[in-house]
Order: sequence, then structure tokens, then C-alpha cells
Amino acid sequence: MSRPYGMTGTHRFDTDTAVGAGRNNRWPATVSPAWTTIGGLPHGGYLFALTLAAAAQAADGRPLLTATAHFPRPARLGPADIDVEVVKQGRLTSTATAGLRQDGKERVRVLATYGHPRFLDEPAEPSAGPPSLGGPAHCLVPPPDLAAGLDATVTERFDYRLPPVSRWVGGPGPGTARLDAWIRFADGRAPDLAALPLFVDASPSALGELVGPVAVPTIELTIHLRRQPAPGWVQARMRATRLAGGLVEEDAQLWDSTGRLVAQARQLGLRL
Amino acid sequence: MSRPYGMTGTHRFDTDTAVGAGRNNRWPATVSPAWTTIGGLPHGGYLFALTLAAAAQAADGRPLLTATAHFPRPARLGPADIDVEVVKQGRLTSTATAGLRQDGKERVRVLATYGHPRFLDEPAEPSAGPPSLGGPAHCLVPPPDLAAGLDATVTERFDYRLPPVSRWVGGPGPGTARLDAWIRFADGRAPDLAALPLFVDASPSALGELVGPVAVPTIELTIHLRRQPAPGWVQARMRATRLAGGLVEEDAQLWDSTGRLVAQARQLGLRL
Repeated sequence: MSRPYGMTGTHRFDTDTAVGAGRNNRWPATVSPAWTTIGGLPHGGYLFALTLAAAAQAADGRPLLTATAHFPRPARLGPADIDVEVVKQGRLTSTATAGLRQDGKERVRVLATYGHPRFLDEPAEPSAGPPSLGGPAHCLVPPPDLAAGLDATVTERFDYRLPPVSRWVGGPGPGTARLDAWIRFADGRAPDLAALPLFVDASPSALGELVGPVAVPTIELTIHLRRQPAPGWVQARMRATRLAGGLVEEDAQLWDSTGRLVAQARQLGLRL
Repeated sequence: MSRPYGMTGTHRFDTDTAVGAGRNNRWPATVSPAWTTIGGLPHGGYLFALTLAAAAQAADGRPLLTATAHFPRPARLGPADIDVEVVKQGRLTSTATAGLRQDGKERVRVLATYGHPRFLDEPAEPSAGPPSLGGPAHCLVPPPDLAAGLDATVTERFDYRLPPVSRWVGGPGPGTARLDAWIRFADGRAPDLAALPLFVDASPSALGELVGPVAVPTIELTIHLRRQPAPGWVQARMRATRLAGGLVEEDAQLWDSTGRLVAQARQLGLRL
């Protein structure tokens, strides 16, 4: 098994996104039942991270700068192949595309560009800090019952802490389609660049804070990585907008435990 | 020559993004000298629109919902081939990827999803309207000299109207990396979904409003289409943020002449 970076090996995220030995740029993988969303289907952010684990083999250890995933078909649990095409390997940047296939049909397509470590390490313009939620200790733990009843296992992989206003913890909701949360892996794994594509999609849709529980499968998700996150909790803010025809656009920002912006993402989903 | 939608045939954008008859999903194209940026290199937004013109052949006339372009290598003027791979053709959405190649090397890679027309036509949540600039008649025409001296032809393809504060028309700048502009094709062609991927990249970087003239070639650009634009001027707002290591992130919003948001985009560029 091969890991591009952030190798720890003893945590569930690492074992469940490990890809086998590749031949002819095809990497065998397994879609794990430990990361399902409503209805028992594999979770989009998990599939994104899994497909990126194969694509990263083309990156020579360079950190991920930006990646886009399109989800043309639902995936299923079990074996998959991930076909990786290296578009360019360069001094400053490398670009690869990868498609996760099951039964000959492509379920996830990713396009990713990796870059020189200085793109994430050097000083940058200060960005807006996170909204004030109070620390995780001042927030509430969501009830586990709902997710388990819907065959969604992905929420068991995380600890969440929600501000009391959130509908997810029985509050009245913020009056708009916005969700603030503290998130970390339940098994103590530290966040890193490989995990952030999952973290941006690790919470229920922010639309739920306005309309109640709702499923919004992802059509497209783009993430921009800003820097390596510090260990500890990740603070997330998600905001949803309802577009025409049942589409939902959702913006996500992630800050690390030192209050630095580490990633932002935008996705297009379809409200079921 | 084949056009997916918005066919007019007599305007420069249409003739210069037309692709030849494809065989085996390879479409011959020509990178025109009429759309160059600083240094005489083909302009990123033009290459995006050209590559999408081939990808759209997989869309059965469905409108574009979202597309991402990565620019692994500079393109050059002259012949190119665009290889299109249909990832999925479906009832609600279709997904395709396309790579523009010259001399066997891939210069542009696009990943695009098209959808049912209702995704753009039905009523949606009202979005924030455009910032008030005064109409185009209250704004100023930028001097043509600078772009011509840098072998940049792309600005000749557009009419621009800038608020007096803009450095591009000799103003002091807004004090931040933000550019507001009215934009339309100089030859009278109406804006449409095929042209918006070019429009989001049709102005100088907003970073120039803070630091003066600057070249920021695009690494990655993602656009989300919101609706078919009405005829007339398009209003654009671009905002840039300087990241680590010389990277620049730029957000763009486009409104049509009726004040409706028609597209938004985010790109990652490298400051030269």
C-alpha cells in the first residue's frame, strides 16, 4: 500500500484510502462501508479523498494545491479501479486526472494540480479569521441516532461540536442556510492536506439549517488548499444557496486550530 | 464546423472557437492570434472556451453547468487537437473531459458537466445584485496603448467601461485588489453560456488595481453558470487575494444587463 503524504497507517482514514500497487497507471482500491452517507451509499468526500490518493502518485510528493471532482454516477461499496493519467510533471506544478471505475463505469472523475511546497509554506496575505463560535468545549455534540438510522456511517468517523443555535443539536437554526462546526477525526488522526478534501464535505448540507434534514448529493466539488493544517480541531463554515431546478451551491471554509484558513471549497449539488 | 449553442457564425468569437469535424473523439482546432495576452501567448479564457467548444459535442445540446480548466503548459498559436472523453451521458447530467494538445503535449485540460435546461431556467433564490457602478455611460474607456504594446490582442475583442477610480483608466485605484467593469464583445455579439467562461477571465487581474500592471497566468479556473445572460453589457466584479509563494486567488462574479447573477468563478494564478 502506498501513501503520498501524511502517512500514519494506523488510522481508519489512512487504511480506507490506501490504494494497491498500480500497473499501467491503474490502481486497485476498495470503497469501504465505514464512510457511507444517507442510504448506505459511499460518501462523496471520502470518494474524493480515495481517488486523490491514487492521483497523488503522479505528484512526486508535492502538496495538493487544487482539485475538482465530478460525480457522474453513484459509487457502490467494494472493489474499484482508479485510472490515473499524468497530464504534466513539472518543476513548479504537476497535473493529473483520475477516474474511479466500478463494473466498467466511471463513478468519480478528479482533476488535480500539485505544486512546489513554497506555495503553501511561505507567508501570505492575512485572510479573514474564523467566525467566533466559542471553543469546542462551549459547543454541543449532535445526537448520533439520526445518522445511524439512515445507514450513514460517515458521521461516526468524526467528532462534531455545534453551536447551540444549530438545528443539528436541537436549536432553532441560524435563520439562514449556514452551518458552523468544529470537526476532527474520532480516532485522533490529525488533519492534513490529504484529509481536507473530505473535511470540506464532512457535515450535513448547510441547507438543512434552513429547511431541516435534506440530502444534497454532489455533482461537482472544487477545493483550494491554502496551507498544512495544525493538529487539533478544524473549524468549518458552510453556506448554501438554492439555485434553479433544485440545484444547491455550497461554499465551505476551513480554519485550523490556530485560526488560519487552510482550505476553501465550492460545490454544486442536487437537492433530492 | 459545429457549434453547440449560441451559434451566430458571423462573429469573431464564434469563428475562432469553432472546431472541425471530429473522428475518434479528436477535434481539430486552431488557436487564433486574435486572442492573445501579454507576450503574444494565447489567452487562458479563450483557450477555456475553445476546449469547451469541443467538449460540448458530448452534451447533446444541454447547457453547461460547471467547468474547470487546468493549464499545465502555455499554448501557442496555430493548429491543435482537442481529445474529448465522454465520462457519462445521462438524463439529468452529462460529464466530459477534454484536453487541448499541440506537438503531442497537453496544454489545457477541462472537466465539464452539462445539465437539464431546467437547472438554469427555473426560479431560484434571489442572489445579491451587482455593486452600483453607474451605467456604462458613466464609466470610462481604458486606453488601448498599453495592451497593444505588450502584444495582447484580447482586449481589442471587448469594449470595457471602468469606474473612474480604476487604475486602468488613470484613477487612484480602490485601495484593494478589486476590479469592477462593464464588458461586452466589441463586434456586437451577445453574451451567452459559451462566452461566459471567457468573460470571467476577460479583464486584467484585480491584483493590478492594488499593485499596478501585473501578469498572473492561470493555473486553474472553475466556473459555475447560473443562467443564460440577457443581451447587452455584462457587469463583472473581480477580487484577488495573494497567497503563499506568489500564488494569487481571484474570485469573479458576472451579472447580466438586467442585474441577474449569471456566473461566478474562482481561479488560482501565479504572479510572474
